[in-house]
Amino acid sequence: MTGAVTGPVLVVGCGLIGTSVALALRELDVAVHLRDRESTVVEMAVAVGAGTAEPVEAPQLVIVAVPPSATPDTAAMLLAEFPDAVVTDVASVKQPVVSVAAAGDGSARFVGGHPMAGTERSGPVAGSARLFEGRPWAVVPTPDSTPEAIALVEEVAASLQAVPLRMAADAHDEAVALVSHVPHLVSVLTAGLLASAPRDHLELAGPGLRDVTRIAGSGTGMWLDILDSNARPVRELLVSLRGDLDRVLDALDSGGETLAGRMSDVLDAGRAGTRRIPGKHGATRIESAAVLVPVEDRPGELSRLMADVGASGVNLEDLSIDHEYGRPVGLAAIEVAVDRADHLVASLIERGWPAYR
Amino acid sequence: MTGAVTGPVLVVGCGLIGTSVALALRELDVAVHLRDRESTVVEMAVAVGAGTAEPVEAPQLVIVAVPPSATPDTAAMLLAEFPDAVVTDVASVKQPVVSVAAAGDGSARFVGGHPMAGTERSGPVAGSARLFEGRPWAVVPTPDSTPEAIALVEEVAASLQAVPLRMAADAHDEAVALVSHVPHLVSVLTAGLLASAPRDHLELAGPGLRDVTRIAGSGTGMWLDILDSNARPVRELLVSLRGDLDRVLDALDSGGETLAGRMSDVLDAGRAGTRRIPGKHGATRIESAAVLVPVEDRPGELSRLMADVGASGVNLEDLSIDHEYGRPVGLAAIEVAVDRADHLVASLIERGWPAYR
Repeated sequence: MTGAVTGPVLVVGCGLIGTSVALALRELDVAVHLRDRESTVVEMAVAVGAGTAEPVEAPQLVIVAVPPSATPDTAAMLLAEFPDAVVTDVASVKQPVVSVAAAGDGSARFVGGHPMAGTERSGPVAGSARLFEGRPWAVVPTPDSTPEAIALVEEVAASLQAVPLRMAADAHDEAVALVSHVPHLVSVLTAGLLASAPRDHLELAGPGLRDVTRIAGSGTGMWLDILDSNARPVRELLVSLRGDLDRVLDALDSGGETLAGRMSDVLDAGRAGTRRIPGKHGATRIESAAVLVPVEDRPGELSRLMADVGASGVNLEDLSIDHEYGRPVGLAAIEVAVDRADHLVASLIERGWPAYR
Repeated sequence: MTGAVTGPVLVVGCGLIGTSVALALRELDVAVHLRDRESTVVEMAVAVGAGTAEPVEAPQLVIVAVPPSATPDTAAMLLAEFPDAVVTDVASVKQPVVSVAAAGDGSARFVGGHPMAGTERSGPVAGSARLFEGRPWAVVPTPDSTPEAIALVEEVAASLQAVPLRMAADAHDEAVALVSHVPHLVSVLTAGLLASAPRDHLELAGPGLRDVTRIAGSGTGMWLDILDSNARPVRELLVSLRGDLDRVLDALDSGGETLAGRMSDVLDAGRAGTRRIPGKHGATRIESAAVLVPVEDRPGELSRLMADVGASGVNLEDLSIDHEYGRPVGLAAIEVAVDRADHLVASLIERGWPAYR
């Protein structure tokens, strides 16, 4: 079952995601029409090359890219307005829109969608045709969606270089509560503890704290909408988290051997959880080791290091740079396959780098 | 007040931190003697060049690098064994050891210490002379510590390229509960939710989840000891966190406008908290922007990109690589000063990279 995207496509909502979808479709030479309740937003999307503001008579596909809370009504309206079009959406919560669409006349022509992509930026100017490359794209049919409609939406995801994953709406919403909404709230709550802390306490902050709190820095508007739309699965996980937190508090109160017994269960569950996160390419996490190299903070140093890593013939799995407190130096952590790490250290030392494992 | 490290120095406990301190002092040509209750551990530390296992008569300085729970008794014993030596330690919790030392005869010669450094690895073979470069090193005197003793411990930290920060024991323990122990537990609890989740829910995982749960993957033994030693400040923060969590649950129950009002306070506090974390070089966070570049996953590609970034003349603030689900491609996020980002994008596009902001 293939569903070629021949167009025209109508994108409704020219924010970051809508504009990015439109830009990517334009690169594939698909005719894209744009609509937004704010005319200046459409103008900006047209200006960046995302399509035309001209009305469209009979689109092959309508993509609803408005905020999650507005998505169900907008999708229903567009199913009525374009009786021959397939309609999809990109909202981060799927039960509300899928259940509204399933209850209406256009149920067979609706297929929900959710590209797992975004940035801290927003609006049409932040849009990018490459936003979806390599990202999962949940495809969530109604009970009545035709195979042709499903194939078309999967083809859109695939042609934008995303990885379509077909899921039921309830499974999707539970999954995003687990891998996105609850981690976001946890990050926010941890960062919130810093807001009232004495300044000198924060001087001891290291890379671990920065990792845990990084996503808490993103904007609040979209998150309010997401959390409202997915309150039930988020709530269930947070209640479970509170139960675990209470067990940690009990363990801290007990102290000594009892603490060790209770707390090690919690710590072990955490380690086990991290190992279940899919690694690169959707495959199991590659056994890797970090090679550490202090790098002076001036232009060209890192490129010289990377060139020397390249010259060593070792393929890099991941790289991060930890900027150091109080000193003009960064520490590059080069993740490589564990059986290549010693070779890389030796090769870098030979080239004058103070590399170590 | 300067306190030259002339040696000999006795390091007691040849784990990661003890061995790393010893290696760094050896590079400065200081005589280092090593002791550990396990002779094979001392042998390994000697083998990697951290010093000698020969006994020492009258050390200038004794560095206690045993697990936190054993640190107070060990420090007291060593103050008695070497009546002319300054004694310091490296435990991640400071009140227990400082209060024991303050209550004893050697109070004037004891100065607590805590280098904010470590890796997921442990043991003498993981030791590195460069482990402390650019890291904060808390220096925690007793009420009786002499200026000479304090100066000596600060000089050790500085000569190991760390940044000494003088603090009181209670302030230190509250600070590390905030910036290290509680974030670790939060990361563990979030990762723990993944342990029992359906496999297909995890397929939607993205970089945000990986950031939040990264530190949960480290070993449990040391953490049990740390949490037991610092239970009170950790408990206080976790109780505060539970209060915030309950407010989030209330907000989720309320829905709609009420949810928005209550939740936006929580989200805003989180954003404010992230902004208080000191940036690189201890300075205020530099206003930066991310330039994004898809990079094929094969040796040499990243080094070619870094060379082209270097050629653009733009100084890199940070770099991360997000490996993509289901595709042999990574997305490099190059953080640069916000007023240099457009120049970098243009420069990279000119060199054939599909760079965008």
